[in-house]
Amino acid sequence: MRIGVLTSGGDCPGLNAVIRSVVHRAVVDHGDEVIGFRDGWKGLLECDYLKLDLDAVSGILARGGTILGSSRVQPAHLRDGVERAKGHVAELGLDAIIPIGGEGTLKAARLLSDSGLPIVGVPKTIDNDIAVTDVTFGFDTAVGVATEALDRLKTTAESHQRVLIVEVMGRHTGWIALHSGMAAGAHAIVVPERPFDIEELAAKVGERFEAGKRFAIVVAAEGAKPRAGTMEFDEGGKDIYGHERFAGIARQLSLELEERLGKEARPVILGHVQRGGTPTAYDRVLATRFGWHAVEAVHRGEFGMMTALRGTDIVMVSLAEAVETLKTVPDERYAEAECVL
Amino acid sequence: MRIGVLTSGGDCPGLNAVIRSVVHRAVVDHGDEVIGFRDGWKGLLECDYLKLDLDAVSGILARGGTILGSSRVQPAHLRDGVERAKGHVAELGLDAIIPIGGEGTLKAARLLSDSGLPIVGVPKTIDNDIAVTDVTFGFDTAVGVATEALDRLKTTAESHQRVLIVEVMGRHTGWIALHSGMAAGAHAIVVPERPFDIEELAAKVGERFEAGKRFAIVVAAEGAKPRAGTMEFDEGGKDIYGHERFAGIARQLSLELEERLGKEARPVILGHVQRGGTPTAYDRVLATRFGWHAVEAVHRGEFGMMTALRGTDIVMVSLAEAVETLKTVPDERYAEAECVL
Amino acid sequence: MRIGVLTSGGDCPGLNAVIRSVVHRAVVDHGDEVIGFRDGWKGLLECDYLKLDLDAVSGILARGGTILGSSRVQPAHLRDGVERAKGHVAELGLDAIIPIGGEGTLKAARLLSDSGLPIVGVPKTIDNDIAVTDVTFGFDTAVGVATEALDRLKTTAESHQRVLIVEVMGRHTGWIALHSGMAAGAHAIVVPERPFDIEELAAKVGERFEAGKRFAIVVAAEGAKPRAGTMEFDEGGKDIYGHERFAGIARQLSLELEERLGKEARPVILGHVQRGGTPTAYDRVLATRFGWHAVEAVHRGEFGMMTALRGTDIVMVSLAEAVETLKTVPDERYAEAECVL
Amino acid sequence: MRIGVLTSGGDCPGLNAVIRSVVHRAVVDHGDEVIGFRDGWKGLLECDYLKLDLDAVSGILARGGTILGSSRVQPAHLRDGVERAKGHVAELGLDAIIPIGGEGTLKAARLLSDSGLPIVGVPKTIDNDIAVTDVTFGFDTAVGVATEALDRLKTTAESHQRVLIVEVMGRHTGWIALHSGMAAGAHAIVVPERPFDIEELAAKVGERFEAGKRFAIVVAAEGAKPRAGTMEFDEGGKDIYGHERFAGIARQLSLELEERLGKEARPVILGHVQRGGTPTAYDRVLATRFGWHAVEAVHRGEFGMMTALRGTDIVMVSLAEAVETLKTVPDERYAEAECVL
Repeated sequence: MRIGVLTSGGDCPGLNAVIRSVVHRAVVDHGDEVIGFRDGWKGLLECDYLKLDLDAVSGILARGGTILGSSRVQPAHLRDGVERAKGHVAELGLDAIIPIGGEGTLKAARLLSDSGLPIVGVPKTIDNDIAVTDVTFGFDTAVGVATEALDRLKTTAESHQRVLIVEVMGRHTGWIALHSGMAAGAHAIVVPERPFDIEELAAKVGERFEAGKRFAIVVAAEGAKPRAGTMEFDEGGKDIYGHERFAGIARQLSLELEERLGKEARPVILGHVQRGGTPTAYDRVLATRFGWHAVEAVHRGEFGMMTALRGTDIVMVSLAEAVETLKTVPDERYAEAECVL
Repeated sequence: MRIGVLTSGGDCPGLNAVIRSVVHRAVVDHGDEVIGFRDGWKGLLECDYLKLDLDAVSGILARGGTILGSSRVQPAHLRDGVERAKGHVAELGLDAIIPIGGEGTLKAARLLSDSGLPIVGVPKTIDNDIAVTDVTFGFDTAVGVATEALDRLKTTAESHQRVLIVEVMGRHTGWIALHSGMAAGAHAIVVPERPFDIEELAAKVGERFEAGKRFAIVVAAEGAKPRAGTMEFDEGGKDIYGHERFAGIARQLSLELEERLGKEARPVILGHVQRGGTPTAYDRVLATRFGWHAVEAVHRGEFGMMTALRGTDIVMVSLAEAVETLKTVPDERYAEAECVL
Repeated sequence: MRIGVLTSGGDCPGLNAVIRSVVHRAVVDHGDEVIGFRDGWKGLLECDYLKLDLDAVSGILARGGTILGSSRVQPAHLRDGVERAKGHVAELGLDAIIPIGGEGTLKAARLLSDSGLPIVGVPKTIDNDIAVTDVTFGFDTAVGVATEALDRLKTTAESHQRVLIVEVMGRHTGWIALHSGMAAGAHAIVVPERPFDIEELAAKVGERFEAGKRFAIVVAAEGAKPRAGTMEFDEGGKDIYGHERFAGIARQLSLELEERLGKEARPVILGHVQRGGTPTAYDRVLATRFGWHAVEAVHRGEFGMMTALRGTDIVMVSLAEAVETLKTVPDERYAEAECVL
Repeated sequence: MRIGVLTSGGDCPGLNAVIRSVVHRAVVDHGDEVIGFRDGWKGLLECDYLKLDLDAVSGILARGGTILGSSRVQPAHLRDGVERAKGHVAELGLDAIIPIGGEGTLKAARLLSDSGLPIVGVPKTIDNDIAVTDVTFGFDTAVGVATEALDRLKTTAESHQRVLIVEVMGRHTGWIALHSGMAAGAHAIVVPERPFDIEELAAKVGERFEAGKRFAIVVAAEGAKPRAGTMEFDEGGKDIYGHERFAGIARQLSLELEERLGKEARPVILGHVQRGGTPTAYDRVLATRFGWHAVEAVHRGEFGMMTALRGTDIVMVSLAEAVETLKTVPDERYAEAECVL
């Protein structure tokens, strides 16, 4: 068989582990040929690719980033995108395409699949917001990086009377904020799903100081927003490419809390540190299993599907189902983390 | 309510996170009183305990070990153990006991539960071999530590022509060996579930060198054994306490492989490094959730049960079910890690 | 003998290691008594202290922060500060005071020493800007944290065409920026000692992209400033306590570079993550040696002095000499890091 | 100019950083050509080399191992080694050779230098036992890895009554044992420089338990030996290549201490984990500076010399001086670490 692989969308620790696993399973075990498209869908649309053999994937398992590059180009962006993709698949004699990507990528995958192309997707998002899988790789690494930073901050905040507001990733969901906040014992967590009341937040933090504590740590998902009318809020805007540029919830919160509490408050913005670097063992194992099972699905001819984790099993779910809803943090999970407002 | 907590058996990253979570949920949210027995069941049998309030658990979330201490004493070890335990529970006016421990502890918990005591267990084992839960806390940390060591070894083994044999924990099951070996891209993994053929192992490693590679990494679970008759093997024996003392599979393998391959081979023995120190974020979240749900089960009066992870949910399973079988690595999982013999 | 210890000024990994070392050397080896003043000079001025025995310092060697607390209060802040300090020293029968702190603290130490108090200082600053010692503890940890973040960012920046600007500590000197930038292979470093020309910086980064590279990493010390007139620049101001609040060089640079280069540029602000958490082995050894030698100096009656590292030796230098000049990065060191503008 | 580089002897974190730095300084700044010999002196003797340009060293700064490979071959091993080396240097038109290596390599470098070849050495050893430099790169990483393991072991040893004996690198000197033991607060350290008395060691550890402590950590340099006659001791022997194979001080100590103390004792053998993987920021900066200054020495024509760290400066010292004596741990340094016997 001949299989094409591509990585699309934002960076995510574990992408290389999937690529390596696909090549190992397909080339070594099945005797397949594998090619990798450069820069996501762009490579497919422009027929820009390289051959992926064992040497090409040697030493990449533990490396962050993606050896194939990525971009935000989607087939639907081009008027003739779908046709072009189909043309190149035919031209290259591909029996299957394995796109590895997030929500946008999976929607594009579904579009191509509906148009008749043989597609098996692999979900990818550090935000963990894809509904049909228990977890996606990259999430554990992001949570780990954020937790390590929070651990360090706790000792330093304690030395002085200080409030630290740590901005973590999560534009639409609060999974990283919830897990890193729980893991590090944050004193308050604010998330996109639940617009917060700044007075309530200030009260919660203030209570700690009144109880004699010397510091407080607030974790804020980058997409967290105040409840309308409770504080002035700059939502940010677009950068020169039209991409969202957040104005920085941590910076805004630090000014508001400082004023309300009469305590020094400082922002920490981890940014891309959370999505780069070597994946955790957890993410490497999950990514490796996704790659392995994607190749198996190709060989079984199960197209229009995507790998997913359910409990300890890797199962196949339909791409259609995968992109229907965003997985937000359910109320029960919030209740467990007592610091959530 | 009045709740007693104890930690029993081998050390495991996340024990303190469970204790802290029980106290936070019980004391803050339910207004309960919590006491902690010292050194596991020994504390219950000898009525040795301390009060656990918020201050007592402050700052322990990220700490390895257990603030309560542990021991291998089980109620069944004492002729009148069960009666004594019941007497102390009555004396102290306890409404529930939450023992946190591994197989032996859960068996003891079941024994006490069957005798009428109100017990809610929390499973604990870095070996991940308890059948009724997807994962236990501590496992992720152990795998992470082993993987980090393997990552380091890969670069150094590459500089010279060398075989490194890394002994990881796992007396009865190969979960840590499997996951760390997959995560780090080991070239061979040997596990207790599958006695290995030394010639086959040597051949597998030898092939790498013939293919021009300059090094090989073998991961060996400490309980891995050769197939009978394929090599001389010292099983170890008992230490002065009658505890198993393994003779060291890595050391024995390094001698055997050196002889067969004509390459330098060196053992690395990570030992207790894998079960100490700060838990990963994953383990802290899981441990915190187990503690939270154990308290909820107590308040619902669900005794004779144990917390378990199923997918993304924490559920309660019966203690009876929990200790029936050991969770060994299924064949499919071995197949995914292509390096397993 | 009776010795008082205190930690003053900003937090710094290794403070607890010094405290522990002083107690171990003084109490165990010399049979001294040691007390610790709470919250720096404030504790001395208000006679607020605790006894420090072996139990009090058990387990703190690897912990960030300071068990004694800190504050920015200096004896000179109070009209009768020096007299009060002298009174308390007499009242408590202290034979020596060991203040651990940065520039301000050492100046206060000198003031008290000049007024006749028996003082042996221990220098402390993550910024590494004290002139008479090769290195101060805390610096290695700060550089390590920043380097780890930069390592992660390099893989993620590579996946997309992106410029990342990482703001590290260093208000007056560029040591952390220089060392972390060198260690991680940053593509440009801007530091307080050398106001930068934004056009030159943009050109340097732009060259990389023209040479076909896909990303660039800029390290900016928080105190770095543009050369007057080359770009609009918000210097920040004071927070509600009159402390400097920087407006954020990384954020400002990201906007400027994005505009000039036509590439996405994003800021990362590590902030207090660099000064919290467990110290590196290097810092723990240095801090432990400083503590040990401070006690020896006390026993030799060498007052008005401070511990310092020279090569591999710990030597004593006069407090007067210590606070004379700030140690800025010399030109030769900049030349070695080819990325400095 | 045309410069040849090679790495020889055991692996050491920072080798790639030196190579990269040599190439950056020589190629970019001086317009030189650089070639790298494969597998140390072997590459020079067999004229096996590759061109090193900027692309060849891209991304290697943070990587362990050496992209050039290494071996233990020395020119003196071949009857006509020196002549062959001279012939190849002439043939390739090399203006200088920069060998990066330990004691054996520097001796070979001196031999070749004495025979008239233009040599500038860079010292390398994780053991830190080269006399004329304050520190060598690789040492800080080794100490860091050992300290992290010790940190983890402290929490787990505490949970049970247990003695852990951790074997760290150091065949002839105890630097790694001393620094990691000080950094982690070990309770006893044994080193090659001071044969230990097993009864004294057992007594020291026993005292801790008598004082109510629940565990003890002993750090043993792999070359540590008992004082003659105090215990039976297997020195090890040679492996199939005639290289030293130590019999394992930790394993032997664990059996001896268990018997004497009546406490469980377990060995941990970190082995090559200490010399592999990414270098610390400290080692990367030192290695980068060594490479930079080696190129400068070449351009100044200072041959027969070696880079060395003195305080904060990189200086050149003669190769002759460099290999005269081994740098053992001085008595004062032992005294500072109170746990040394």
